[in-house]
Amino acid sequence: MSDISNLPNSKKIILKTRPDGDPKVSDFEIIEEKAKAPNDGEVLIEVQALGIGAWIRTTLNETAFHGATSIGGTLPSMGIGKVIFSRSQKFTEGDIVSGPLSAQSYTTMPGDFFTKISNPEIDPFTQIGILGVSTGLTAYFGIYNVGQVKEGEIVLISGAAGGVGMIVCQLAKLRGAKVIGIAGGKEKCDVLINEIGVDASIDYKNENIDEKIKEHAPNGIDIFFDNVGGEILDIALDNLRDRARVVICGAISQYSHHDTVDGPSLYLRLAEKYAKMEGFTVMHFEEHYEKAYIELLELYKLGKLKAPFHIEEGIDKFPLALQKLFTGGNTGKLMVKV
Amino acid sequence: MSDISNLPNSKKIILKTRPDGDPKVSDFEIIEEKAKAPNDGEVLIEVQALGIGAWIRTTLNETAFHGATSIGGTLPSMGIGKVIFSRSQKFTEGDIVSGPLSAQSYTTMPGDFFTKISNPEIDPFTQIGILGVSTGLTAYFGIYNVGQVKEGEIVLISGAAGGVGMIVCQLAKLRGAKVIGIAGGKEKCDVLINEIGVDASIDYKNENIDEKIKEHAPNGIDIFFDNVGGEILDIALDNLRDRARVVICGAISQYSHHDTVDGPSLYLRLAEKYAKMEGFTVMHFEEHYEKAYIELLELYKLGKLKAPFHIEEGIDKFPLALQKLFTGGNTGKLMVKV
Repeated sequence: MSDISNLPNSKKIILKTRPDGDPKVSDFEIIEEKAKAPNDGEVLIEVQALGIGAWIRTTLNETAFHGATSIGGTLPSMGIGKVIFSRSQKFTEGDIVSGPLSAQSYTTMPGDFFTKISNPEIDPFTQIGILGVSTGLTAYFGIYNVGQVKEGEIVLISGAAGGVGMIVCQLAKLRGAKVIGIAGGKEKCDVLINEIGVDASIDYKNENIDEKIKEHAPNGIDIFFDNVGGEILDIALDNLRDRARVVICGAISQYSHHDTVDGPSLYLRLAEKYAKMEGFTVMHFEEHYEKAYIELLELYKLGKLKAPFHIEEGIDKFPLALQKLFTGGNTGKLMVKV
Repeated sequence: MSDISNLPNSKKIILKTRPDGDPKVSDFEIIEEKAKAPNDGEVLIEVQALGIGAWIRTTLNETAFHGATSIGGTLPSMGIGKVIFSRSQKFTEGDIVSGPLSAQSYTTMPGDFFTKISNPEIDPFTQIGILGVSTGLTAYFGIYNVGQVKEGEIVLISGAAGGVGMIVCQLAKLRGAKVIGIAGGKEKCDVLINEIGVDASIDYKNENIDEKIKEHAPNGIDIFFDNVGGEILDIALDNLRDRARVVICGAISQYSHHDTVDGPSLYLRLAEKYAKMEGFTVMHFEEHYEKAYIELLELYKLGKLKAPFHIEEGIDKFPLALQKLFTGGNTGKLMVKV
């Protein structure tokens, strides 16, 4: 973009009211205003795709772990975009970048917030859905560094048909584990079995989770990778083997009432089984992002890592997409094509 | 005892009714009957001292992790006694042994259940209170093997004036940690400071636990060694440093309603801090008992490990002692001198 005086109009999704429980479309508003001209060090980015993650809900409370979104503020979101005007040394026009773009069609922010995509030939949905920080990298560090999955172990995964879950399933399989995925509904379970290649699936909406775990892992599980929390966490705790590891990656069932979270009432099983529950956020592994990205890219290119995505078209659909995430309306990583 | 035909009378503490909540004296009954003559492989033991542990409460429910005590059954208890008649190859009369004697003045059981005390010159209270499986060994494996305390770290301990807690405090200090002990009441806190040598104490009955933790550990704690559970566990979770470890040793606040345990509602702090919560029982370290016992014995002989005991006189006091444990009526390991 050579003519900075002619700035494009940008659509933004802003917070109208703090959600009471799960986020609803009516909690948000779409506004349109001229994109901001970049200052020194800043870039103007045309947003291409945004990932919808459960962590966004946690920013909608007044006090929030990931930083609170203020009323009238633009919703946060990670995504991929193209630099169309650069006043940062780091980027030139046309660069494809990833980072905290937020829910808008054009973003003006310091260049330092973003990373240049080294393989721009790979489409933005794969970048977000398989190779992204909140998907592939989270899955990678969670199951390898925290869970330390080993050959022959039994891994149970909640939210297995979600953006992180699907990658965890495949990474665990690649290390020789037996994988049991929990998801809601027959359609998601079919995808897990037929496309992702898990050994067994459990449909939590129609099957008894405890009974199914005992059927597939009569001696208990070695790793529980939890994206959900709540009742499922307690059931998993009740099925641990000695020296089992519970990896706390997320707790989507609890994010809508973050101040009154249901703690795992069976946490004393950890003592009975000499087991541990370890949490993490992907940010704790920032210095290892590059190594993991290269490994995931290699697996993707070899066809060993895949994932169906759920894509909503247009920035206007951002609120609907967020609402869907909390009602389990997506199979695979939920994204918005801007 | 040469004349086995003249067996002594044995007093037993039996379960009359399953306690509703904390155990009360009225839940138990004292009966007296002739001791049983040992069969082949069995020994008759004169019980000298018994330890009162919170785990005993967990056996009083219909279904129980440590095995349920039946109505009319003798309460379980670990202790020290003298073999007065042996039909086991393992023991001769006069041997001092430790093991699951149960709450009675004479015990007849298979010799295989017991271990000969290699240092019978050390009194039974020290054997139970400092060198015992449920005290010193539990503390040792919990803070060294599970918690992996390191020099300069900050260790917070709940139930610090109890049988396990007092030893944990001292073992953590010996490794160069800063130790903060939580106990109920000024008397216990004074003992922790003046006799046990902790760096700071928190009186949970009269002080704000969260404020006091923040005062003594403004940057958070590295290890929380939990014997109590409930609210204290949540407060500790809210004060973790990055990479902190929560050691789940017990949860005395929860044993009286084991089926409706309050789970830690702040367990997601584990993810925020890349921290872990690991549980254990001392039985998981059985193969290392001897090494740990020798190390503890050495420390004791050097005067580096001490602990005040709370001793109730006479087997008749067993029910009262158990009741006291749950109302926090003891400073140091609670034992019954039989």
